[in-house]
Amino acid sequence: MSFQISSSPRVRRSPFFDSTVADGVTSFTSYNHMLMPTSYGDPVAEYERLIHSVAMWDVAVERQVEISGPDAAELVRVLTPRKLQGLYKGMGWYVPLCDHRGVVINDPILLKLCESKFWYSIADSDMLFWVRAIAAERGFDVEVCEPDVSPLAIQGPLAEDVTAKLLGEEIRSIRRFQFTHFDLNGIPLIVARSGWSHQGGFELYLCNAAKGNDLWALVKEAGKEFGIGPGTPNPQERIESGLLSWGGDTDDQTNPFELGLDRYVDLDVADDVVGIQALRRIRQNGVQRHQLGLSFHNGSTLSLLESRQDVMQKDKRVGFVSAVAWSPRLNRNIGLSLLDRDVAPGDEVTISLSNGQQQLASVCKLPFI
Amino acid sequence: MSFQISSSPRVRRSPFFDSTVADGVTSFTSYNHMLMPTSYGDPVAEYERLIHSVAMWDVAVERQVEISGPDAAELVRVLTPRKLQGLYKGMGWYVPLCDHRGVVINDPILLKLCESKFWYSIADSDMLFWVRAIAAERGFDVEVCEPDVSPLAIQGPLAEDVTAKLLGEEIRSIRRFQFTHFDLNGIPLIVARSGWSHQGGFELYLCNAAKGNDLWALVKEAGKEFGIGPGTPNPQERIESGLLSWGGDTDDQTNPFELGLDRYVDLDVADDVVGIQALRRIRQNGVQRHQLGLSFHNGSTLSLLESRQDVMQKDKRVGFVSAVAWSPRLNRNIGLSLLDRDVAPGDEVTISLSNGQQQLASVCKLPFI
Repeated sequence: MSFQISSSPRVRRSPFFDSTVADGVTSFTSYNHMLMPTSYGDPVAEYERLIHSVAMWDVAVERQVEISGPDAAELVRVLTPRKLQGLYKGMGWYVPLCDHRGVVINDPILLKLCESKFWYSIADSDMLFWVRAIAAERGFDVEVCEPDVSPLAIQGPLAEDVTAKLLGEEIRSIRRFQFTHFDLNGIPLIVARSGWSHQGGFELYLCNAAKGNDLWALVKEAGKEFGIGPGTPNPQERIESGLLSWGGDTDDQTNPFELGLDRYVDLDVADDVVGIQALRRIRQNGVQRHQLGLSFHNGSTLSLLESRQDVMQKDKRVGFVSAVAWSPRLNRNIGLSLLDRDVAPGDEVTISLSNGQQQLASVCKLPFI
Repeated sequence: MSFQISSSPRVRRSPFFDSTVADGVTSFTSYNHMLMPTSYGDPVAEYERLIHSVAMWDVAVERQVEISGPDAAELVRVLTPRKLQGLYKGMGWYVPLCDHRGVVINDPILLKLCESKFWYSIADSDMLFWVRAIAAERGFDVEVCEPDVSPLAIQGPLAEDVTAKLLGEEIRSIRRFQFTHFDLNGIPLIVARSGWSHQGGFELYLCNAAKGNDLWALVKEAGKEFGIGPGTPNPQERIESGLLSWGGDTDDQTNPFELGLDRYVDLDVADDVVGIQALRRIRQNGVQRHQLGLSFHNGSTLSLLESRQDVMQKDKRVGFVSAVAWSPRLNRNIGLSLLDRDVAPGDEVTISLSNGQQQLASVCKLPFI
C-alpha cells in the first residue's frame, strides 16, 4: 500500500532536505520528529552502492542530546549502565540507555567532546526529556539541549576514499568510534568513523544547519569518481548485519540481554546508575526472550514488513518478527525476531505475513553476515 | 511537494487502520510513533462536514500514559502545575505539563479513572519516559504503562446525535470534560465529551485494539443518516479556533504563559510540583513572546505550511509562523505565530513563505472564531 506523507512544522525537515529532493528522494519516514529519506526509488541500486561502492545518507534525524557543565561526566555515568573509564575525549561509544526497570529506551552513541561536554547521538525516542528529568531530579549542575548538529553518513567500502578526498588523507587514521573536528571551507564538522551499517564509513556531524546543502554538494562532488549516489539506512543490509532498530525490534519490555547487548552492560557499576538494580535481577533470573534471525524457506522475494507479525511454533505464539527483507548476498529472505527463550537456532517456525500467507522459516543466530 | 510515507514496525498502525484505508485515506503523518490519517483526498468536504454536520476521526495516536497504584494521585499532582482539587472521578482536564525550566513538554488531557488510576491522553512526545523518570526518581509506588486504549473522535454539530444513536440518549447528559464507561456489543469504551475541535463532539476511547474495525463500522452505520464521513484533525478549523499543536506551534523554550495558558497554571501549588519554581520566576519577570494570530492580506488561497517561517517587522525577525490555512468561514488566509512581546495586535508583519513570495499580514488576537 502506498500513501502520501503530509508535511507540517511539527515534523521538521533536515538541513539536507532540498538536496535530497533534488537528488530524487521518493519516500520518507519520521524519526525524532523529523523527516528521514527512506528511498530514492531504486532499492536494488541503493543496496548495491552500499555493498560494493559508496552511498551518502541524510541521517540528520540522529539528533544529539548535549550535556555540558560541571556535572556532565557524573550525569552520563548514572545514565549509562556501561563503564565509561576508557571513554576518552574524541571517542564515541555505543551505550544502550535503560530505564529503572532495565528496559532499553534508546541505544545512542555517546560522544565525549571534552571532560565537561558529551553528546548522545540518539535513536527514535525523546531522550532530551529523559536526560533533563534525571538531571533535574538529582540536582546536577548541567545544561541539556539539542544543539544544531545534523549527521550526514558516507557508507560503503569506498567511503574512506571519498572522505579522504573531501577532508584530506589524515582521516584514514581515525579509528572506529573515534572522531575529530574539521573545518571544510567554513563548514564546521565533527567527523567520526561510524554509521548504521557494517560496510564501513564515516559520519559527518554538520554543526551549522544553514550549510546543509553546501555540505551535500561537496560530498557528492568528492564522491563522483567513486560512483557515490544517494541512499538511506538500508533495511536489507541492516538485517544481514543484525543491527538494532530501536522501537522497531524492541517493545516496552525489552532489556539489553534479550538483544545480546551484554557486553555493553557492566553489572558492577555503582548502585546509583539508572536501572542497574533491575539489570542485576534480570541477569540473575535469566532472560525470557532472545533476539534471533529467521531464514525463510520461501525463495521468492518477500516485501519489507509494514508491521510486526506473530511467530508461531506448533500453534503457540512464541514471539514476533520485526523485520523481513530479501538478502541479495544470501539469496534468500531473512528476518529479525524476538522469541521466547525456549526457541533455539535450528527450530522451525511459522509466520503469518500481512497478505495472510503462511511462511515457514528456520531460526538462526545473528548476525547473518 | 508530494512524497510517499514508508511503513515499518517502528511506526505502528492504528486499530482503525484497515477501515481508514477502506474509506479512502490518502495521506498520513506520524504522531507518537504511529501513523495518523491527515486526509481522505477532499479537504473541502472534510472541513464542511466538521463545521456543518459530523465527521469521524482516527485519533488512536492520542496515546494514554496510565498511572496506577497507591501514589498515583501524588504523582499526577507533582507532574501538573494546575490544582487538581476539583478533578473528580469521571472527569478529564486539560493540563499542560512543564519541565523543570517551566517549558511545556506536552499538553494532555488528564482523566481520573478512580482515586488510584489516571490517564494522560497525550500530544506528540514521549511522556511515558518522562512520567516514569519522575516517578522512579522520587520513589513513588506506581505502575506506569501505555494501556491498550485508542480514541476515535466524532466531531461536529451532529456528533451528539450520532453518539446518542450509537450508545443511547443518556450520553447527552455527559458534560464537557466528563467521561463514562460503555460496553457496545462487547466493545469496551470510555466515552468523553471532548475532541481537538471547537465544533463539539465525543471521543470514544476504544479499550481493545482487536475491535477497532468493528467500532469504526458501528460509528459509520450510526452516523449514516446524519451524513457522517471520515475526517482528520482539521488544520483550518484548529487555526480558526486557536487550538494548540504541541511541537508545531511550540519550540524547546515555550512556556504556558506565552501560549495564553495562564488559567491552567496555579502558581500557589506546592513547591515540589515539577517546574513551579521556574514558572513563578517567568511570571514575575514577564514573558518574552506571545502566541498571536496572523490575518493575511493576500486573498488567494495559500498552501498549508510545510515548515516554520520567519516573521519580520521592519527587517527585524520578530518570531515564527507555525501554521497557515485558508479559512472558508473568514474568507481569508489566517495563521498562528509566536512573536516577540513588543509585537501587538494591529501591527503589520511580513512573512517569507517557502515559495519565496513575501506575504503581508496583520497581527491579531486569538481565537479567530
